[in-house]
Amino acid sequence: MAKLKSVWLQELTWEDVAEYLKSDDIILFPVGSTEQHGPAGPLGVDSYAAIALAEDAAKETGVLVTPPLWFGDSPHHLDFPGTISLRTETLVEVAKDVICSLARHGFKKIIIINGHKGTNNAGLITACRSLHQYELPDVFLSLVDPMYLARGIAHIKDAVEHHAGELEISHVWYKHPHLIKQEKLTGEQVNLEPLMSEFTHKDLLGKGGDSIEIFWNSREQKAFAPTGSFSDSSHASPEKGRQYHEYMVKNLVKFIGWLRRYEGPIGRIKQ
Amino acid sequence: MAKLKSVWLQELTWEDVAEYLKSDDIILFPVGSTEQHGPAGPLGVDSYAAIALAEDAAKETGVLVTPPLWFGDSPHHLDFPGTISLRTETLVEVAKDVICSLARHGFKKIIIINGHKGTNNAGLITACRSLHQYELPDVFLSLVDPMYLARGIAHIKDAVEHHAGELEISHVWYKHPHLIKQEKLTGEQVNLEPLMSEFTHKDLLGKGGDSIEIFWNSREQKAFAPTGSFSDSSHASPEKGRQYHEYMVKNLVKFIGWLRRYEGPIGRIKQ
Amino acid sequence: MAKLKSVWLQELTWEDVAEYLKSDDIILFPVGSTEQHGPAGPLGVDSYAAIALAEDAAKETGVLVTPPLWFGDSPHHLDFPGTISLRTETLVEVAKDVICSLARHGFKKIIIINGHKGTNNAGLITACRSLHQYELPDVFLSLVDPMYLARGIAHIKDAVEHHAGELEISHVWYKHPHLIKQEKLTGEQVNLEPLMSEFTHKDLLGKGGDSIEIFWNSREQKAFAPTGSFSDSSHASPEKGRQYHEYMVKNLVKFIGWLRRYEGPIGRIKQ
Amino acid sequence: MAKLKSVWLQELTWEDVAEYLKSDDIILFPVGSTEQHGPAGPLGVDSYAAIALAEDAAKETGVLVTPPLWFGDSPHHLDFPGTISLRTETLVEVAKDVICSLARHGFKKIIIINGHKGTNNAGLITACRSLHQYELPDVFLSLVDPMYLARGIAHIKDAVEHHAGELEISHVWYKHPHLIKQEKLTGEQVNLEPLMSEFTHKDLLGKGGDSIEIFWNSREQKAFAPTGSFSDSSHASPEKGRQYHEYMVKNLVKFIGWLRRYEGPIGRIKQ
Amino acid sequence: MAKLKSVWLQELTWEDVAEYLKSDDIILFPVGSTEQHGPAGPLGVDSYAAIALAEDAAKETGVLVTPPLWFGDSPHHLDFPGTISLRTETLVEVAKDVICSLARHGFKKIIIINGHKGTNNAGLITACRSLHQYELPDVFLSLVDPMYLARGIAHIKDAVEHHAGELEISHVWYKHPHLIKQEKLTGEQVNLEPLMSEFTHKDLLGKGGDSIEIFWNSREQKAFAPTGSFSDSSHASPEKGRQYHEYMVKNLVKFIGWLRRYEGPIGRIKQ
Amino acid sequence: MAKLKSVWLQELTWEDVAEYLKSDDIILFPVGSTEQHGPAGPLGVDSYAAIALAEDAAKETGVLVTPPLWFGDSPHHLDFPGTISLRTETLVEVAKDVICSLARHGFKKIIIINGHKGTNNAGLITACRSLHQYELPDVFLSLVDPMYLARGIAHIKDAVEHHAGELEISHVWYKHPHLIKQEKLTGEQVNLEPLMSEFTHKDLLGKGGDSIEIFWNSREQKAFAPTGSFSDSSHASPEKGRQYHEYMVKNLVKFIGWLRRYEGPIGRIKQ
Repeated sequence: MAKLKSVWLQELTWEDVAEYLKSDDIILFPVGSTEQHGPAGPLGVDSYAAIALAEDAAKETGVLVTPPLWFGDSPHHLDFPGTISLRTETLVEVAKDVICSLARHGFKKIIIINGHKGTNNAGLITACRSLHQYELPDVFLSLVDPMYLARGIAHIKDAVEHHAGELEISHVWYKHPHLIKQEKLTGEQVNLEPLMSEFTHKDLLGKGGDSIEIFWNSREQKAFAPTGSFSDSSHASPEKGRQYHEYMVKNLVKFIGWLRRYEGPIGRIKQ
Repeated sequence: MAKLKSVWLQELTWEDVAEYLKSDDIILFPVGSTEQHGPAGPLGVDSYAAIALAEDAAKETGVLVTPPLWFGDSPHHLDFPGTISLRTETLVEVAKDVICSLARHGFKKIIIINGHKGTNNAGLITACRSLHQYELPDVFLSLVDPMYLARGIAHIKDAVEHHAGELEISHVWYKHPHLIKQEKLTGEQVNLEPLMSEFTHKDLLGKGGDSIEIFWNSREQKAFAPTGSFSDSSHASPEKGRQYHEYMVKNLVKFIGWLRRYEGPIGRIKQ
Repeated sequence: MAKLKSVWLQELTWEDVAEYLKSDDIILFPVGSTEQHGPAGPLGVDSYAAIALAEDAAKETGVLVTPPLWFGDSPHHLDFPGTISLRTETLVEVAKDVICSLARHGFKKIIIINGHKGTNNAGLITACRSLHQYELPDVFLSLVDPMYLARGIAHIKDAVEHHAGELEISHVWYKHPHLIKQEKLTGEQVNLEPLMSEFTHKDLLGKGGDSIEIFWNSREQKAFAPTGSFSDSSHASPEKGRQYHEYMVKNLVKFIGWLRRYEGPIGRIKQ
Repeated sequence: MAKLKSVWLQELTWEDVAEYLKSDDIILFPVGSTEQHGPAGPLGVDSYAAIALAEDAAKETGVLVTPPLWFGDSPHHLDFPGTISLRTETLVEVAKDVICSLARHGFKKIIIINGHKGTNNAGLITACRSLHQYELPDVFLSLVDPMYLARGIAHIKDAVEHHAGELEISHVWYKHPHLIKQEKLTGEQVNLEPLMSEFTHKDLLGKGGDSIEIFWNSREQKAFAPTGSFSDSSHASPEKGRQYHEYMVKNLVKFIGWLRRYEGPIGRIKQ
Repeated sequence: MAKLKSVWLQELTWEDVAEYLKSDDIILFPVGSTEQHGPAGPLGVDSYAAIALAEDAAKETGVLVTPPLWFGDSPHHLDFPGTISLRTETLVEVAKDVICSLARHGFKKIIIINGHKGTNNAGLITACRSLHQYELPDVFLSLVDPMYLARGIAHIKDAVEHHAGELEISHVWYKHPHLIKQEKLTGEQVNLEPLMSEFTHKDLLGKGGDSIEIFWNSREQKAFAPTGSFSDSSHASPEKGRQYHEYMVKNLVKFIGWLRRYEGPIGRIKQ
Repeated sequence: MAKLKSVWLQELTWEDVAEYLKSDDIILFPVGSTEQHGPAGPLGVDSYAAIALAEDAAKETGVLVTPPLWFGDSPHHLDFPGTISLRTETLVEVAKDVICSLARHGFKKIIIINGHKGTNNAGLITACRSLHQYELPDVFLSLVDPMYLARGIAHIKDAVEHHAGELEISHVWYKHPHLIKQEKLTGEQVNLEPLMSEFTHKDLLGKGGDSIEIFWNSREQKAFAPTGSFSDSSHASPEKGRQYHEYMVKNLVKFIGWLRRYEGPIGRIKQ
C-alpha cells in the first residue's frame, strides 16, 4: 500500500482514493456540532473532539477520514447565540447520503466518530440501523462516542461531567489551547435533581442508577443553566485532555485493528 | 376527583376524560413491539411489559393510560416469522401524532413507557425532543425504559441480560404464565465479543465498560443467534418477574408522585 | 396443520408462526381508532369493532390476526377529549410497515379489518394501492369495512346510522356490555341537510342518492354535534349488535374461504 | 359585479381576479387523469369530464375555474401506454398547494371537481381533510365526483358501469365527438366476481350490496382486462352523454347556489 | 409510422400510443405556471408559452406531447390574486411521476419545455438529475427554457426583459391575441439596482456581468413592483412574438432532429 | 464593536457571538462539495473555494462565517472514488436548518457562498426561496457563486472552463499549493458538442448562446470524461488563482458594504 500524503479525503485526488481502496476498506466519518459550550468553550467543541479523535486514530492506523460534519442535533441549545442545529431528520439524511456514497466506492467498514456526546445518536443510529437492514447489508457500520468509549478513563476527572464539563473542555484545551477562555472556567454545577427528579442521569460518563429520560428545550435550559455550562470545569486542564484523548485514541486504534482482521458475520452475511 | 371506572382511555367516554382533566393532567403511553423473543417467549413480550407497567402504575396513582402501540422498531428481528417492524421514521410520526392529540386536550405531563428495551428509543427521543423544542414547549415529556429504570434490581438475575433474557422472560411469565413455553427456556448464551469486538455492550441492564455501537441486521442475527434468543433464560421464574415488575412500578409511582407536585421549569417556561 | 393455541400473533412464538406458514398464508390486520363516540360509547368503539370481527372470523377459519392498531385518522373529533388522531400520512406509513413485515415472512393474503367506518380508508387505500403496484405485486391485499360489509343487514336498525349510531353502539354493547353507558343513549339525530346541502350522505350504510363530499373540522363538529353523537342510538341493543356482528363474521368467513381457494390473477401474476 | 370575459383563471389578469373577489369567493378546481380508457376512449377522458362539468357549471353560475390538473392517481393502468400516474402522496401535495394558493387570495369556498371516478379520492380527501382541520379551518372545501353526483341518472344506461363504461364514454362523445373511436366500442363486460369474490363492487354508480375492497395492479389488470375496457360500451351515445352531463351540471348549479347563500358553520367557525 | 391524428397524448387512445412507440421514443412535457403577469398579461402566460412551443415543435417533427402542467413554482407572486404556486418539493414530485410513467411505457427521450422562465428550474433540475442518476439511467432527459433557448433572438426587443416583459407578452399576443389587454401595456421599468445592488441580473435573456442571487418574497415584490410588471412592455407586438416563437421552434426542431439520430452516451450507457 | 479573535463561528464562544450581534447582523455560510476534480485537483476543491472566499471577505469586512458544509450535490461524480454526494433534498434541509438557526439568533442578512459552481444551486435556491417566502420573510438571503461572480475576470483564462478547469484549479493552487498535483495537469478538453448537441453550454463562466440543459449521470460521465477532468488545465497557475480570488473577494467586499447600508425593501417589509 502506497503511503498517502494525508488521511483526509478532501486533500486527496480520486486516484489516491482508488489506490487506497485496492488494499483497505475502512474509513472514519467525524460528526460534531456547532453548539454553545458555556462561557469558556468555543462553539466547535464537539466537532474538534470528533476531528481530533478521527485524525489521530487514522494517522496511527493508516485509514482515511472523510471531511467532518460541523453541524449536529442541538435544539436545546438554540437560545444561545451561535448554536446551529440540524433537525434529527436532517441529520439522518446527511448520514445516509455520506454512507451510501462511501459504500458505492467500496468502503466496506465505516466508523462514525460522534463528538457530540449522546445527542447526535438518535439520528446516527436511525441512519445506520436502517441502511444496514435495508440498503447496505454488506457494509459494516459502527458508531463511536466518547460518552461510551471513555468510561474507563472517567476516574481522572474531579467533577461530575455534564454539558461543557471538565473532560470535554480539557480535550479541546489540549488540542487547541487558544480556543479555551481560561478566565471563564467555572466551579458551578447545576443541580439536576430538583429539575428532573431523583431519576436524573448522574454523569454523562458515569455508571448511573435507575433513570428516566426527561426532555428539555432551549428556553428551559437557558432558565436553569443561564451561562450554558452545566458542570464544574474548574479542574479542567490540558493534561487531563491529553490523557482523555490518548485513552480514546488507543481504544480506537485497538478497534480498527480488530476490524481489519474481522471477517464477519456482521457485514459479511450472504443475503 | 371522581373515580374513573378504568385507567384505560379506550374504555372511557370523552366526558369521562373531560372530567379527569379537570383535576389531573398526567397520562401514560405504553409502546411495545411485536418481535420474536426466542423459542420460549411470545412475540408480544415488549408490549406486555409496557402494558403491565403502565396499567399497574396507573392503578396505583389514579392516572390514565392510552391504548398501547403494539408495534415498534425491530428491523433486526425481521428474519424471524411474526416480527412486525415500523421504520424509525414511522415510529417518530406515530409518537408525535399521539402526543399532539393528547396535548390538545390539555394533558400537560406525558410519560412514554417503552417496553422494547432501548431499540425504540431513537424514534421516541426524536419525537419528544423535536415536539418539546418546536411545537409543545409547555408540555412535559418523559420516557421510561426498563433498561434504565431497573438497574437497581438487576442483581436478582443470574445470567447476563440480552435479548429474550432472564428478566424479560420472567416479567411476562409473572403476568401471563400461559404465554411462556417453559420447555423451550435455554441455558445458552451467545458470546458477543468475537462478533462485535471487546467493545461490545456487556449487559442490557449492566454497568458496562468502554463500548462501541455496532449495527447488525436480521440476516446476521439469524446467523449468530439462530433460535432468536441471545441469553440464558434458564434461571427465569415468575417470582423474579414479580420482583422486577414491582421494583419498576414502585419507581414509576415515585416518579408520578414527584411529577404531580413538580412545577417546572421543564414544561413551564413562559415562551 | 397443528392447531395453534391462539389466533393472536402476539401470543405466539416465532416458531409457532413459522409452523403456521407451512400450510397457510392468510392474516388479518385489525385497524381501529381512539375517538369519541358520544356520551354513551367508549373511545375505543372502532377498535373494539375491528378486534371482534377479526378475532371471531379468525377463530372460525383458523387464520392468524396481528395485534390491533388502536389509533386511526380522526382529526374531526379532536375537540372531544381523549380522541387520538394519526395524520393520514402516518396511517399510510404504519399500514405499509405492517404489511411489508408480514409479506417478508411469507404471508401472501392480507386482509385489513377497518373498524373505523370510512374515515381510515383514504390512508389504508393509499398504502395498499401503492404497495401492491410498486413493492408487493404478488401479495393479495384487501380491505374490509362494516360500512360496506354490512349493507345487507342494515335493515335491522330503526334509525339513520351516522357517527355513534345505533349499529356501532349495539356492536360494542353486545361484545363489551359494561362499556356502554345506557343512560346516555340518545334519541337525537343531527339534521345534516342544512349543514351540508341536500347532497349530504343520507346514511353510512344506506344506499344514498346524489351526494357531494363536504369536509368539516373538529371545531365545526363540536358546534353542530356538541354531544359527539350524530345519530339516534335509542334503539340500540345487544341483540342488534349480535345480529350485526354475526352477519359480518359470516361474510368474512365466506370471503376467507373463497380466498383460501383463490388462485389469482390478483396476487398471482408473474411480473 | 363586472362580467368577466372568461370563467377560466388562466385567461384573466390578476386585476380581473381581484375584481371578482370583491363580490364572490367561490372557485372550482377540475382534477382529471391521463389514463387509458380502452380502445375507444382517449387517454384524457377523466380530464375532459372534469373540465366540462366545471366549465359549464361555472358559465351558468358566474364562478371562476382554475386551470385543470391533467394528471391523477392511476397506477393500475400503467401497463397501458400513455397512462401518466401521480403517486397518491404527490396528488395530495398538488391539491394542498393549489388550495392554499387560492385561500391566500380570499377564495373561501373551493369545490374540487374530480373527473377520475373514485380513484383520485384517497388523495383529494387526504388533502382536504388535513387542510381544513389544521391549516384552513375557515375555508369551505368540497369534493364532487360523477360517481356520487350522478346516481340519480344512472338509470339511463343499459350496461353495468365500470372503467371505460357506457356513461363516461358517452360523456366525452357528447362533448368531443372526434375523440371517440366508435368502431372500437365493445359489447364485452369483464366478469369481476370470479376475480374478486362475490363481494366485488357491482357498478360504479350502482347501489351495491355487501362489498370488500380488493387491490389490483397494472399487470393484473392487463391480464384480466387486456383491452383496457372493463365494461360494455356498445350502448354509449352522445345523447346519453348529454343527459348525463346536464344532470350533473344541474346538480352542481344547485349546489353552488346553495353554497352562495350558505353561512356555515362549515367554514365559518371562529377558531 | 402511421400518422397520428393529434400530437397531444390526451386526445389519443392507448393503442395509438403503443403504435407510436413502435417507431419513436421522444415525447415533450410542457410545464408552465399560473402566475400574475402584470395588468396586461393573463395568469396563464408561462403555460401558453410552453404549450405553444411544444405543440408547434411536435407538429413539425411528429413527436408526441403530454398534457401540460398548468402550475409551477411561483411563491413570490402570491400577493397577486390568481397566482397558484406549487412548492418546489411538489413540483419535483410531479415531474418525477410524469417522467417515470413515460419511461415505463418506453419513452426513452423526454424533453421538458419550461415556459416559466428560470423559476421552475430548481424543481425540474432536481427531478431530472436525481431520476437520471438513480432510477432512469437509460432515459435521456433534457430541459428547454426560453430564457436560454432564445438568447440569439433577444436583439429584437427594445427593452430590458424581466417579468412580464416585452418578449413574453409578445409571445402570448401572437398566439392568443384576445388574452392581452393592450391598453394596460406599460412603459415603466422597475430599476432593480437600488433594490438588489449592482450585482443584480441585468436582463433575463441578456449576457450579464458579475451577479449575486437575492431572494425576494411576494410582499416585497408587491412593494417594489405594485402592478406586477417589472418591465417595459410598451414595445411588445404580435410580430415580435411571432419571430421569438418561430426562432425557438426552429431551435427545438433542430434539437429534436439531432436527438432522433443521437445514440449516446447520454441515456445509452450500459450500467 | 469589539474586535473578535476569529471570523469563524466555531472558534468563538456564544458570548462572543452575542457581542457581535449587538452591532452587526451579517454572516457568511460557505457550502462546498467533496467531489472528484480530475487527476490534479483534490476532492475538496469546491469546499476550499467557498472557505477561501468566505474567510477573506470576512476578514476584510469584519463579518462572521459559519463552519463550512463540506458536502454538496454531486451525483454525476459518484463513479469516481471519494466523491460524497448529498441528494438535493438533503442539501435543501441542511441549508434550511442552518439558516433557521442563524435567523433565530438575530442574524438578519445571510450570504451563502457556494463554491460548487452551479450544481448546488438547485438545492440552495429551493431552500432560500421557500424560507424567505414562508418562514423568514424578514431575513435577507443571498447566494454567491463564482460562476456568476467572476464573469468579469474570466478573460484571464486561456481555455474553456468546465469541471476541473483552469480557474478552479488555479484557485486552490494559489491557496493550497501542496494540494495540486502539477504533474497531472492536462491539456485535454472534452468536446461536449457531439455529446450534448450544438445547444450545449459553451463555458461555465462564459456568455453562452442558445442552450438546452441535458442531464448526465456518473456512469456516462465516467465514459465521456474518464479522467474526471472536462477541461484543459495546463494553463492554470497560482498567479491566475490569485487574480481570480482577489477579484471575487473584492466583489464580495463591495456587496457586503452595500448590504450593511441597505435598508430594504428586501428583508425589511412589514408583514
